[in-house]
Amino acid sequence: LIVTALHQQIRRTIRRYGLLPPGSRVLVGLSGGSDSVALARLLLELSTHREFAVAGLAHLNHRLRPSADRDEAFCQQFAVRLALPLIVEQADVRAYAGEHGLSMEDAARRVRYGFLERCATALAADRIAVGHTQDDQAETFLLKLMRGAGLTGLGGIYPRRGMVIRPLLDVTRADLRAYLASIGESWTEDETNDDIGNPRNRIRHRVLPELDRAAGAPTRAAIARAAAVIREDGEWLDALGRARFDTLACARDPVLELDAAGLAETPPPVLRRVLLDAMRQRAGGREIGLEHVEAVVALLGTGQGGVDVPGCRVELRGGKLVLIQQGGAVR
Amino acid sequence: LIVTALHQQIRRTIRRYGLLPPGSRVLVGLSGGSDSVALARLLLELSTHREFAVAGLAHLNHRLRPSADRDEAFCQQFAVRLALPLIVEQADVRAYAGEHGLSMEDAARRVRYGFLERCATALAADRIAVGHTQDDQAETFLLKLMRGAGLTGLGGIYPRRGMVIRPLLDVTRADLRAYLASIGESWTEDETNDDIGNPRNRIRHRVLPELDRAAGAPTRAAIARAAAVIREDGEWLDALGRARFDTLACARDPVLELDAAGLAETPPPVLRRVLLDAMRQRAGGREIGLEHVEAVVALLGTGQGGVDVPGCRVELRGGKLVLIQQGGAVR
Repeated sequence: LIVTALHQQIRRTIRRYGLLPPGSRVLVGLSGGSDSVALARLLLELSTHREFAVAGLAHLNHRLRPSADRDEAFCQQFAVRLALPLIVEQADVRAYAGEHGLSMEDAARRVRYGFLERCATALAADRIAVGHTQDDQAETFLLKLMRGAGLTGLGGIYPRRGMVIRPLLDVTRADLRAYLASIGESWTEDETNDDIGNPRNRIRHRVLPELDRAAGAPTRAAIARAAAVIREDGEWLDALGRARFDTLACARDPVLELDAAGLAETPPPVLRRVLLDAMRQRAGGREIGLEHVEAVVALLGTGQGGVDVPGCRVELRGGKLVLIQQGGAVR
Repeated sequence: LIVTALHQQIRRTIRRYGLLPPGSRVLVGLSGGSDSVALARLLLELSTHREFAVAGLAHLNHRLRPSADRDEAFCQQFAVRLALPLIVEQADVRAYAGEHGLSMEDAARRVRYGFLERCATALAADRIAVGHTQDDQAETFLLKLMRGAGLTGLGGIYPRRGMVIRPLLDVTRADLRAYLASIGESWTEDETNDDIGNPRNRIRHRVLPELDRAAGAPTRAAIARAAAVIREDGEWLDALGRARFDTLACARDPVLELDAAGLAETPPPVLRRVLLDAMRQRAGGREIGLEHVEAVVALLGTGQGGVDVPGCRVELRGGKLVLIQQGGAVR
């Protein structure tokens, strides 16, 4: 029963976001954890309809956790059992983070997706499936919310980004584990998932259970649905903002100039995105936040003067909003 | 110092949302708690610029809490000290809820705002100020999020709705209490605020502190800012949805018909709102959720057939999306 329901939900997600066009060949990113093990088995089951094919598996050994080698061995055996090609690589994420001045989280992400793209090429795959679930979606939304991603990027995880697809985004981790138990499949546990010093783990083990208690019922599905709506609303508003920016930019060099009368006529949700785009283009890589957008909205309201935002001076001059980059680029 | 910063922030909120036009007379809703006591004192201080006037205070004795009469006595003394007119009324919220088949929360809200409007008329006020803070904003957002308000109404509390204004929406309860302490003003404590059987109190005392720990810093301001952006984005998209609905409705009686080709060309964020509006008009008061909107989006994708949603049958027929109300209205 659970297998049928899972198949239906995953097919719905695949169809809704156009994740696997007819004839696609999909590589599965495999960590050895329950989500990616279930992803590989479920995609293999769904591929019997021959609408798409599973091209193989790819496992990156981050060498960050004590269990890294055990996880790699598990993936090797899993691939043999499923008779699927597996590419394994070892990566030194710590060294990469040091070399490129990145956080461990950002470095791990870059190394992982770079590896997966090379594997896709090697196995002639045109899609890369990764195992993010509805739980990850709800956790990511709350993480972004608490970090103040109010203006853009609040919408959680994307079902598709380039070659990368996330067919499990509408199913829960609990359902995947019940499915694995029902077919007698095992997986590896990530011992670092219990470390609540990590913000995501604290969201998972402390915040979400308290939210569930407040609601008197599980809340992950509702949060994930809200994240999806906010993401789709935001993407469309972002696109309107970019189009409006192109209409209102009257000069780009040496300073960026936008038509102030046109800005005044722009509805606030679009205006905020135009101003964010404009400031980001002149901030030299510095972070522009909602408070800077609001400061420029207030400037437009007063009709004269200027404000300083990170990396950039913004002034009203002769019917134009003028952005002058100050200082060089960072990083 | 804190008084100056509070005045500045409240003036910014008043200006930004146009809460108190020159010459307004504002009634203050007073519970006796820290937020509304601070609101009355701060508005009185800001009114010395003579841009607006405080018309008086209004206290509703809900008679639901053991401390209700003590709160009323406090408000009486407070009004005398501030030399402001005070209107007090006692209400039987429980009876009202029973008579009108409402939850206690909904009944209390209706009774309270009805009372405040009558007081505004009596004191010749054109605005009613209530004491919602940034804390309330963050709590309301999380409450709506966990209850699945994904499609509309996620944006938390409005700074203005008709006559009702919320000048404290960008300041924290902690700052208001520090201010009251600094001027030697007292307030009444609501003993029911500690009951974590109540969802809002659990959000306040359990969920938000855990979020703060995950973030390593207070998160209320970030959540409240996100809520404001989502609310403004949503309001604009709602307005686009209503305009698009009017364009696409080709018949309204006896059944509602929308032009299917026009719907297919409508961007998803606007389309969802058109479909929500349409179904709500034919649902006879039943609750329409995101899942029903998605079902009709899927129906439009297949190009034929029909689906049943609460109170209504939706069918594709001859290039039209047809909505047929089924069964009577509820409530």
